[in-house]
Amino acid sequence: MFNGGYTGRILRINLTEQTSTVEPLPQDLAREYIGGAGFTTKIVYDSVKAGTDPLGPDNVLVLASGPFSGTKVPCASRMAVGALSPLTGAMALSLTGGHFPVELKFAGYDVLIIEGRSEEPVYLWIDNDSVKFRKAGQLWGMSTSDCQTTIRNQLHDNNVRVACIGPAGENLSRMACIINELRAAGRKGMGAVMGSKNLKAIAIRGTGKVQVADEEKFKAARSRMTQAMKRSEHLYPQFSKVGTSMVVDATSALGIFPANNYMTTGEVSLADDLGAEAFGKRTRGSQPCYGCPVGCSQVRVVTDGKHAGTLSEGPEFETMYSLGSTVGIHSADFVIAADRLCDELGIDTMSSGVTIGFAMELFQKGIITLEDTGGLDLTFGNEETVLELLHLMSYRQGFGKVLADGSRIAGKLIGKDSGKYAMHVKGLELPAYDVRGAKAHGLNYATSFTGADHCRGYAFQELFGIPVPKAVDRFASEGKGELTVWNQDVRTATTDLPTMCGFLLDMALPDIALQNTADLMEAVTGLVYTPEEVQKAGERVNNLARLFNIRQGFTRADDNLPDRLISEPLAHGGSKGQCISREELDMMLDEYYDVRGWDRTGIPTPAKLAELGLTVAKGA
Amino acid sequence: MFNGGYTGRILRINLTEQTSTVEPLPQDLAREYIGGAGFTTKIVYDSVKAGTDPLGPDNVLVLASGPFSGTKVPCASRMAVGALSPLTGAMALSLTGGHFPVELKFAGYDVLIIEGRSEEPVYLWIDNDSVKFRKAGQLWGMSTSDCQTTIRNQLHDNNVRVACIGPAGENLSRMACIINELRAAGRKGMGAVMGSKNLKAIAIRGTGKVQVADEEKFKAARSRMTQAMKRSEHLYPQFSKVGTSMVVDATSALGIFPANNYMTTGEVSLADDLGAEAFGKRTRGSQPCYGCPVGCSQVRVVTDGKHAGTLSEGPEFETMYSLGSTVGIHSADFVIAADRLCDELGIDTMSSGVTIGFAMELFQKGIITLEDTGGLDLTFGNEETVLELLHLMSYRQGFGKVLADGSRIAGKLIGKDSGKYAMHVKGLELPAYDVRGAKAHGLNYATSFTGADHCRGYAFQELFGIPVPKAVDRFASEGKGELTVWNQDVRTATTDLPTMCGFLLDMALPDIALQNTADLMEAVTGLVYTPEEVQKAGERVNNLARLFNIRQGFTRADDNLPDRLISEPLAHGGSKGQCISREELDMMLDEYYDVRGWDRTGIPTPAKLAELGLTVAKGA
Repeated sequence: MFNGGYTGRILRINLTEQTSTVEPLPQDLAREYIGGAGFTTKIVYDSVKAGTDPLGPDNVLVLASGPFSGTKVPCASRMAVGALSPLTGAMALSLTGGHFPVELKFAGYDVLIIEGRSEEPVYLWIDNDSVKFRKAGQLWGMSTSDCQTTIRNQLHDNNVRVACIGPAGENLSRMACIINELRAAGRKGMGAVMGSKNLKAIAIRGTGKVQVADEEKFKAARSRMTQAMKRSEHLYPQFSKVGTSMVVDATSALGIFPANNYMTTGEVSLADDLGAEAFGKRTRGSQPCYGCPVGCSQVRVVTDGKHAGTLSEGPEFETMYSLGSTVGIHSADFVIAADRLCDELGIDTMSSGVTIGFAMELFQKGIITLEDTGGLDLTFGNEETVLELLHLMSYRQGFGKVLADGSRIAGKLIGKDSGKYAMHVKGLELPAYDVRGAKAHGLNYATSFTGADHCRGYAFQELFGIPVPKAVDRFASEGKGELTVWNQDVRTATTDLPTMCGFLLDMALPDIALQNTADLMEAVTGLVYTPEEVQKAGERVNNLARLFNIRQGFTRADDNLPDRLISEPLAHGGSKGQCISREELDMMLDEYYDVRGWDRTGIPTPAKLAELGLTVAKGA
Repeated sequence: MFNGGYTGRILRINLTEQTSTVEPLPQDLAREYIGGAGFTTKIVYDSVKAGTDPLGPDNVLVLASGPFSGTKVPCASRMAVGALSPLTGAMALSLTGGHFPVELKFAGYDVLIIEGRSEEPVYLWIDNDSVKFRKAGQLWGMSTSDCQTTIRNQLHDNNVRVACIGPAGENLSRMACIINELRAAGRKGMGAVMGSKNLKAIAIRGTGKVQVADEEKFKAARSRMTQAMKRSEHLYPQFSKVGTSMVVDATSALGIFPANNYMTTGEVSLADDLGAEAFGKRTRGSQPCYGCPVGCSQVRVVTDGKHAGTLSEGPEFETMYSLGSTVGIHSADFVIAADRLCDELGIDTMSSGVTIGFAMELFQKGIITLEDTGGLDLTFGNEETVLELLHLMSYRQGFGKVLADGSRIAGKLIGKDSGKYAMHVKGLELPAYDVRGAKAHGLNYATSFTGADHCRGYAFQELFGIPVPKAVDRFASEGKGELTVWNQDVRTATTDLPTMCGFLLDMALPDIALQNTADLMEAVTGLVYTPEEVQKAGERVNNLARLFNIRQGFTRADDNLPDRLISEPLAHGGSKGQCISREELDMMLDEYYDVRGWDRTGIPTPAKLAELGLTVAKGA
């Protein structure tokens, strides 16, 4: 039995058999993996064999909340989603907030495991202990907002929380996401996995509460955490008022805000109608996740022009790049409209936009022509084309068929050596930091188990100049292996496992994040950790995911960056002249592997695995 | 004190003063006016003087539920909305369903009266006895669905019901409507009145119950009603499965489904992709009003093409004409998409579509050109133009400025004798029945106090061949005065006052509607009526509204029809050769006035007023 934090229950759904079973949450799983991404990664590792079709019935979709979700720990009610990624072929991890994650806890579950494949479209209706499989033929084809509303109407309960897929997930776009409210478990194709299982939605209603093991310790730990948050320079009022839009300005100042598929990074003025000021004018308050006093998620509305009346939550910094600068569009109004369209279609704003930017570069270079695109003019900056492509990609129609599965597959389909312009690592499209000017961040892209992922090992030291654990030179490559391991493990340990908000670590708690997590774990769950043990849990997950990827066939060669970042120094702006040369990358990789306790081919040593309590089955 | 049905309370809101007061519902108001449209009409009559600017602070917006709303009377939980109409200048009446109306009752109010004008945008938050004025600057500019969601988020209560305006109401389009869920109090510009008061939304939460005066009588009356409903030929399963789309097929068969601004009515094949079959393919269940076992409101989703993923409730028959055939478009997918767009913009699908159809005729005739339209190609059938115009009308931009206030005003702005092609009566655009082939229906258009309104005096005898009170020849003009008076008064009495669904009368209860209403009134409220007294209440309201319109300057000359219906016999189809000649119309009007007890100028005689207990203040 658990003292607090955990419900102690896993709900396992088999869609093939249409059965549901409740299993106890193993004590050692909680102890070693804490929650969230720890649970998803372990369960996916244990469940999915090499050679599994990510869009077949043998893939598994795992949703896991954290031990603090549903308590009064601020900013901790998020959820991890894991599976074998259909986009990357690697371990997937996608995190999301809103109110769905905590409802899972209130319904009595730490983890939801979804196996198999339904013959007909269904949705799950989880009402505390009651689990029902309901026909979803009538929901098929609906946009995500309408799907959520329709389910609430059907169930005659406005308090039901719904996570669902849109047309992109139904049509198995490998960049489809899962949407709850206007929030996405956005990356790595989790929506396609759901769609492949013929699962349109998961509706949850929970009326339970989450206990805390020790009220006194909890009050003290929570108070320390909120005090630290208040001390933060950036969190209040700046971040809570402008959200991630401030990062456009910050990265522009560093000369690393990419534009036109990374062809013209560094021209700071590109951010003019995409930065904090532009989006600030359109902001109408915030829509915080459950239990969040910060409320970074800004509600924005377009008031003029052809997109007037369109609301979106966010869009976040990454989307200002992916559906803005990298497709050559510098319009806050457009980004808001395109962001909302993506949410309704259930397609990742990042991978979709970057893939379109890639195609636009090919179009500019003459590698593809109007004949290939079905007459669509893919000139950078063509707003109508971007909107139409988002639609076509989600429905796998016309030229959308070529782009629907991301830039890596698009490059293969197009051929003609086009793949070298595809800005991805391991198939995951690059985020909005041109890492030629932030090299630990680049090493993280190369080594993160999910591909080019800003949500793993975020190098806030380079990006915001925060000197924790120490000050660094963002252009230097030396020492970046060690820094990246720290960033990855601490981020995983303090953000992804306890499902706390990543922005806390980056902006408010970098120096006390491990201690804070340890304190909260003891107060909430009664499980006692040292800060080092917390960090070790993060390291364990990063190693286990590495083992999974190795089993999937990934090697050192996949710990790479797109050609452009290696061979083309930045021509303008605050990082002018910088790139990550092949030699630098190799040097950083060597250092990274060494610090990780991996051999120089990137394989964890037996000693490291033993230290982490990980064993690899023979032949695996 | 009331025994049941009524809450006995009126909530009066003054937006100028930001005050709210609760007043008792007068017993004699209930007795003589029953509820709904009776209350709104009486209160608007008493409150709004001649010469009042409908978009000024002295207009009043009145929302009134019926005595059965919130009880187990099926199909009775609707709501009337009244005001001086900015579109017609006459008494307005608009009815709507969904779940908002009953929430008003549960919160403890029969009537909500909104006076004055707020200086800044506000919304009302009515939580049972608590009434708050909340700033709505952040909601301004939002589409109606997002506005409803945002308010629920702000109030942290998913069970709040919201009625609101969209951009069209904010920009005072005289065809703006009030939207709750995806339902509209659609016609006569009620959204513009709300917008003129700077009132973005009304949020209501009620936890009360509605009492019934006599449980035993109630059970018996309710049972008789439901049995009658079950006996209906049309209600189940047809109407409950296909909704109003069946009327496209029915009117096409009669040759009275209009197309291209009434230029080509009668070409039945026009209905091919607009009828019950076309919409049936896209139907995904229904979304009934509170307490409705029929569920005519069909949820429909577009699955293919550029509008794929779009959901709408309905669209109703009228919209299949107004955003379909009359703008030359014969596509169910398009109508669904345009219907949803109108709901989000908060603009009436009927008046907006018919006004666009009018402009398209002018464009075809060369009366307006690309120069007038700002380059928009207004050729019949141009889908993109229709969508763009809906947007421009709602925002009063470009050529939308000319069309934003309906066809009557557009005709005046355009000049060149264009007004004769505007299909309206008293400024209200014509519904989807070409009354050249249904002459009582035409006389109703001419005489209804709200203008050309299919929701008053619906001539189901002509349209569906139902022989109640007797069989009629739809092409005949004789006897249509008497029939129209009956249709108007019985419809008002059994539908608009008790806020019962109009489809009940037309399809299930025509022969027992008066008795049914009398029975329910006694059982629910304890007030005893004969069927004749019920009918008299309807007559009272139609006379009172007439007095209001006379005060507003309306005369017999306004009881008219568009030129085309008078001078151009139908060229094709099942009503070929028919029109309503000037002589026929005059003859029908004379008969109508005579039956009404009005003089031949259309003014109620003192004897009639005395009979109805109506007195007119001197000089009024």
